[in-house]
Amino acid sequence: MPNYTQDRLSAIDAALLLIDHQAGIMQLVHDYGPAEFRSNVLALAKVGLAFGLPTILSSSYETGPNGPIIPELLALFPDAPVIRRPGQISAWDNSDFVDAVKATGRRKLIMAGVTTDVCLAFPAMQAAAEGYQVYGVIDASGAHDFATQSMAVQRLVAHGVTPVTWLMVAAELQRDWREPTAEATARVFHEHLLNYGMLIDGHAASQGGAA
Amino acid sequence: MPNYTQDRLSAIDAALLLIDHQAGIMQLVHDYGPAEFRSNVLALAKVGLAFGLPTILSSSYETGPNGPIIPELLALFPDAPVIRRPGQISAWDNSDFVDAVKATGRRKLIMAGVTTDVCLAFPAMQAAAEGYQVYGVIDASGAHDFATQSMAVQRLVAHGVTPVTWLMVAAELQRDWREPTAEATARVFHEHLLNYGMLIDGHAASQGGAA
Amino acid sequence: MPNYTQDRLSAIDAALLLIDHQAGIMQLVHDYGPAEFRSNVLALAKVGLAFGLPTILSSSYETGPNGPIIPELLALFPDAPVIRRPGQISAWDNSDFVDAVKATGRRKLIMAGVTTDVCLAFPAMQAAAEGYQVYGVIDASGAHDFATQSMAVQRLVAHGVTPVTWLMVAAELQRDWREPTAEATARVFHEHLLNYGMLIDGHAASQGGAA
Amino acid sequence: MPNYTQDRLSAIDAALLLIDHQAGIMQLVHDYGPAEFRSNVLALAKVGLAFGLPTILSSSYETGPNGPIIPELLALFPDAPVIRRPGQISAWDNSDFVDAVKATGRRKLIMAGVTTDVCLAFPAMQAAAEGYQVYGVIDASGAHDFATQSMAVQRLVAHGVTPVTWLMVAAELQRDWREPTAEATARVFHEHLLNYGMLIDGHAASQGGAA
Amino acid sequence: MPNYTQDRLSAIDAALLLIDHQAGIMQLVHDYGPAEFRSNVLALAKVGLAFGLPTILSSSYETGPNGPIIPELLALFPDAPVIRRPGQISAWDNSDFVDAVKATGRRKLIMAGVTTDVCLAFPAMQAAAEGYQVYGVIDASGAHDFATQSMAVQRLVAHGVTPVTWLMVAAELQRDWREPTAEATARVFHEHLLNYGMLIDGHAASQGGAA
Amino acid sequence: MPNYTQDRLSAIDAALLLIDHQAGIMQLVHDYGPAEFRSNVLALAKVGLAFGLPTILSSSYETGPNGPIIPELLALFPDAPVIRRPGQISAWDNSDFVDAVKATGRRKLIMAGVTTDVCLAFPAMQAAAEGYQVYGVIDASGAHDFATQSMAVQRLVAHGVTPVTWLMVAAELQRDWREPTAEATARVFHEHLLNYGMLIDGHAASQGGAA
Amino acid sequence: MPNYTQDRLSAIDAALLLIDHQAGIMQLVHDYGPAEFRSNVLALAKVGLAFGLPTILSSSYETGPNGPIIPELLALFPDAPVIRRPGQISAWDNSDFVDAVKATGRRKLIMAGVTTDVCLAFPAMQAAAEGYQVYGVIDASGAHDFATQSMAVQRLVAHGVTPVTWLMVAAELQRDWREPTAEATARVFHEHLLNYGMLIDGHAASQGGAA
Amino acid sequence: MPNYTQDRLSAIDAALLLIDHQAGIMQLVHDYGPAEFRSNVLALAKVGLAFGLPTILSSSYETGPNGPIIPELLALFPDAPVIRRPGQISAWDNSDFVDAVKATGRRKLIMAGVTTDVCLAFPAMQAAAEGYQVYGVIDASGAHDFATQSMAVQRLVAHGVTPVTWLMVAAELQRDWREPTAEATARVFHEHLLNYGMLIDGHAASQGGAA
Repeated sequence: MPNYTQDRLSAIDAALLLIDHQAGIMQLVHDYGPAEFRSNVLALAKVGLAFGLPTILSSSYETGPNGPIIPELLALFPDAPVIRRPGQISAWDNSDFVDAVKATGRRKLIMAGVTTDVCLAFPAMQAAAEGYQVYGVIDASGAHDFATQSMAVQRLVAHGVTPVTWLMVAAELQRDWREPTAEATARVFHEHLLNYGMLIDGHAASQGGAA
Repeated sequence: MPNYTQDRLSAIDAALLLIDHQAGIMQLVHDYGPAEFRSNVLALAKVGLAFGLPTILSSSYETGPNGPIIPELLALFPDAPVIRRPGQISAWDNSDFVDAVKATGRRKLIMAGVTTDVCLAFPAMQAAAEGYQVYGVIDASGAHDFATQSMAVQRLVAHGVTPVTWLMVAAELQRDWREPTAEATARVFHEHLLNYGMLIDGHAASQGGAA
Repeated sequence: MPNYTQDRLSAIDAALLLIDHQAGIMQLVHDYGPAEFRSNVLALAKVGLAFGLPTILSSSYETGPNGPIIPELLALFPDAPVIRRPGQISAWDNSDFVDAVKATGRRKLIMAGVTTDVCLAFPAMQAAAEGYQVYGVIDASGAHDFATQSMAVQRLVAHGVTPVTWLMVAAELQRDWREPTAEATARVFHEHLLNYGMLIDGHAASQGGAA
Repeated sequence: MPNYTQDRLSAIDAALLLIDHQAGIMQLVHDYGPAEFRSNVLALAKVGLAFGLPTILSSSYETGPNGPIIPELLALFPDAPVIRRPGQISAWDNSDFVDAVKATGRRKLIMAGVTTDVCLAFPAMQAAAEGYQVYGVIDASGAHDFATQSMAVQRLVAHGVTPVTWLMVAAELQRDWREPTAEATARVFHEHLLNYGMLIDGHAASQGGAA
Repeated sequence: MPNYTQDRLSAIDAALLLIDHQAGIMQLVHDYGPAEFRSNVLALAKVGLAFGLPTILSSSYETGPNGPIIPELLALFPDAPVIRRPGQISAWDNSDFVDAVKATGRRKLIMAGVTTDVCLAFPAMQAAAEGYQVYGVIDASGAHDFATQSMAVQRLVAHGVTPVTWLMVAAELQRDWREPTAEATARVFHEHLLNYGMLIDGHAASQGGAA
Repeated sequence: MPNYTQDRLSAIDAALLLIDHQAGIMQLVHDYGPAEFRSNVLALAKVGLAFGLPTILSSSYETGPNGPIIPELLALFPDAPVIRRPGQISAWDNSDFVDAVKATGRRKLIMAGVTTDVCLAFPAMQAAAEGYQVYGVIDASGAHDFATQSMAVQRLVAHGVTPVTWLMVAAELQRDWREPTAEATARVFHEHLLNYGMLIDGHAASQGGAA
Repeated sequence: MPNYTQDRLSAIDAALLLIDHQAGIMQLVHDYGPAEFRSNVLALAKVGLAFGLPTILSSSYETGPNGPIIPELLALFPDAPVIRRPGQISAWDNSDFVDAVKATGRRKLIMAGVTTDVCLAFPAMQAAAEGYQVYGVIDASGAHDFATQSMAVQRLVAHGVTPVTWLMVAAELQRDWREPTAEATARVFHEHLLNYGMLIDGHAASQGGAA
Repeated sequence: MPNYTQDRLSAIDAALLLIDHQAGIMQLVHDYGPAEFRSNVLALAKVGLAFGLPTILSSSYETGPNGPIIPELLALFPDAPVIRRPGQISAWDNSDFVDAVKATGRRKLIMAGVTTDVCLAFPAMQAAAEGYQVYGVIDASGAHDFATQSMAVQRLVAHGVTPVTWLMVAAELQRDWREPTAEATARVFHEHLLNYGMLIDGHAASQGGAA
């Protein structure tokens, strides 16, 4: 049985892998509303930035129907490697991608891929098979419908991958609001965990200040 | 029976009224996901800007639990009148608000208010009773649940108010993509009608350009 | 077309009728969760108290399977008339009930009845046929499922009855937070509009006081 | 495989931990309606009282946007320790909290935390890693949506935490209605398991008595 | 505006029309679960029997894929006319059917037809056009999905047909539980309004008798 | 009040208008599953062919993100006029489109447009304003979500447009299975009303023949 | 990992345990519609009869609010032992019940209990702990809502209990339609698997016979 | 724990088993809309053809109410063995079926069966018990409702069967879009993964070609 205390994520042992968040493929995502899903993806990306996680992007067949990586996401990572796969469906079948992961030296991989059942599930299960500790960020991956999400989550769990949301990742990395990343994390919450963001705005106003 | 051809909105005969989009009250909105709702509100606001609609904001009891107008919205309208009501639940019961509406000279009112059943419904029905043609933007207003939304919509329809979404407003104002507002409207679609935004991104990429 | 400005409820022209909120019959309510429904019923009752509305309760066949009026509700109205109908399904078919309504002298009737499609709908449509202005409080009435609620609401609207929630009633009666009933209304919101109640609690705490 | 007969809860071997039921954070709960969720939380608390379980409360950042512990809950436990964490997201990272747990001497922990995926999941998994038998009370914890609840439950199960509702806890502790706690447990059911409460009311009436 | 008091159904002015409850066509019903729908249909039929309503059945193309009238229903009406239409989709296009309706002498028609949008809607709107007062029993008719049900209900309302459930029909006919039909109506409730039936059983037991 | 008997569709008085069923825009449809929606659109088109209805197609901005008319649909109408609008959002604002409609000589218009709230609603309300009898085929139009569909349907009904599904259109046109179009209509049912298609297959097999 | 081939149910190695299907407690079931749930319970009971399974009923506190075992169920088992528990919540805590189970000599227990999370879960987990192979019939047990059902199923699975529906039980016992129980099983399907029952009716009619 | 990298499907080690996709039995499928389900079944079949997987069909009691294999499916496999079972509910209880599976020499079995809980689950669990690696294609199997699907998936997972969708199968087999099967796979996507198909159409058009 896994031991959470030993396994917990921290900024020094994790990398972030963002796979196939492309304008075409994202049309397939129907288990989250379009604005919810977009917000989840950007939130996860900003969490990666807030904690300085080594980050790798990947895409497939961008010049075809799959479309380009959505510009809002790409703009957040001007210096990250972008592995454009010539044909492999699973990013883990692409040696450049795996090499880039290895180059990070991290053994805990926070992965999101569109869609959950394929572009997240395949490389996540492969990485787990190679001994990585893998976190699949389900609400930043997206599936055809909830039934598909649910099946994919069960398959991932059976292969040792931990299903999480972007918020679980953020909170697990932050761990204590007295840590120096607190301001950056709070900014992500303000922008993407909107019910919490409104609490921040309301509280700031009640204190006579701006949020 | 209403005659749509005669009644159609255009940028020269409409005003935009945004009521009680406050950090506290918006916690009550549960008929749309938080990111969907935020996106809808901002989209409607930007449509107002794109078409140069006279716009009035209002809030109630900002220094109390209702909270401040959400900053993203307020920032879009640095010069719009903001009617801060000292106690009236219906903005239409506040003479400053009604005067501000009258000052626009417009007879078609595009209104959103949080929540749909109260802060939209009351002033919308009052304005309709005074002969204005009123459009209630349901997906930028928000209700406790879908049943409440549905009841409120039926009450509005019975009082002559037209239920719409921000997209219906945008499309009705734009009317023809050869009109000069097309670029601004397309920008709103890119940012808030995200499935369409991704089509724009995908098409731009396929043409070798940026979105 | 109805004119809201002329028709608005106020505490001086309305009566509250609470029909068949009995421990047996309420088992039939499946369109709201049990705690949501209970909360709605009590909230409506307390709104009646806050505004001093003449209030009439009624029940049917309490000694049989329909069961007693739920004690929490009954305890709120120690002095209100309780019309225990010997057999009539519609309270409006009971002359004691109609006499009690007439004795209030009010022409606007705020009614809730379990279930929406029968115990609310029948007397509501009868009262409307006699010229009363009737508000059916749907979320304090309850139906077998949402489809039944939706059908009943459409039938009510077609007969001139206005579908509302308890919150719409409260806000329409309060109208301005500077009115003397504000404290009582806020107390109802604190106890039953729980997302708002938490805003009150949060704000009070941020001001260094208790809610 | 766990053995239920050996593991069953009883009042002498369990403690109750209530984490972050604060007026701000609870705005994030959208997988249960607001009245259902409030009722679940209070029911669990009253079950703790009925069985005399050692109980520990905790909160985070009460003077900020997270808000105060909801007063209805706090009032039930005038003497319980309240661990106000200065920054730790997981209560288990706070040594005062862990010490308080240890001081109870109990090895079975009934925990609820807002939200399920973070404030329940993290300390629950940590406690399980230290050998405690942990029950996560899902319907008194609350999540952003059902998908998040479902993911969190799967993660908890994979770490050896048992997902329960407040009702399962109550029934498992009561075990036999001839035990002296029966009256107190029945009172909780009357107030919070409302369909059952109405059966009690109906039965009492049919016996000619009050509930 | 319709006047309910004048229009109310009674057993002396209504007829019951049951159209196309056939083993094939009923496979199309997906807006109610199969047991719920079957129960609704039989309940409506038994209400007709309880009140001695003149009843007419009709079917189309029984020897083809539409299948036979379900035997449970047919068995309830050994003497009712069964108009087997040779090809007309709308029963009202069949002169035998219309003649049978006219022969009843009733001007209020309680109709159910599978499916709601076609086999109920067409004859219901035709009958309304000829001046009959028509009640469409939506939960004993059945549609492809809720959206179709909702559209059909709106179309029916716009044509003057009243949407009801079998329970509304039963309660409207019974009107007073002291009327001689009470026992028969209660039996239908016991068998088909199962939450009420269980109240009857529970109450009978608490009185020391059998239900 | 409309009179269905007088208004009924027949093949000699109706035209079919199919607007903006384009590969891009159809990505916005989320109120029906993708296969259900595709099936509905093709079914409506085939109904038009089966009854020889004059049919007009229209599209907007096909070379841009809106994309081409889906090939399966276009292939069904090799000879129908396709009005490619240079910029008008509402097809009724394009004089070629209106001229094409007028050229059919028909006064009953069966319209579908993607999406329901814009591309169907605008021209449908305009045509109704000019005195056409308009049927909006909701399940072959598609909307962002069910709430938007519901709002659009209510707006259409308020403007005199009749909301229907493709099946209602087919059944209203067929009227009697002894009419010569029966075989063609049955073929559409076999291919697109799949629960009925399976009844046909099952019955044919039980008769020893092929479907 | 369990081995289905070895474990399969057959009529000679299984017993059926029906717990707390009482008129009061069944009011708590909200995860299935009332007619669906009633049908599931009776179907399971009839499957037991069809295969001659030793069957034990149990109830708790019948003279109180829990109410009597529903008469339709009790009537099916005039000779089965009915263990009326004086206070134990879990039937497995009642030695008469356990003795009755042991007296059957069966090691595979098909259990249903109202509600799933308590009256099924507790004895099912206890029996599993004693080495029985336990099948929990979820759709004949019933829970407060789907989330509770889902949690209970996960807890059961973690304790080695197999979650099934009545249909899975019936099919697993029948195994081959040439076995002598086929007629009895088909009768249960006709009455309770209604979509299948209608296929039987339709097929019989197409063969010129009665179902 | 399974190792995905070792286990991955490929065209050389898998067989496809399609069980009971019959016109009668498919009426029981209510967890997917009828067009979605039909599309899923045909997509899976075409994936089998695209990769040249040995394929076996089976049916039960075709001349009775179960009906014939749907003709669209049968027509795709003119040469595949069709095992018509004389009475066995589980295909794996039929020795001809097992012999046919063995004759393929494949150890990875991709199975779909109507319905998921019986006709898929039983043979899938039996095959797994004999050491085959089994993939249950849930969205091409179909269940009575989502709760049944969810229970069946959990039972399958507990027995070592992997739950998948047709799309997961297709992507796992294709693995790299540069493999020769790419064109055939893309054709299946175009026809059955319709949101992706529309991307293909849109992209082709933007390149000036046909899809």
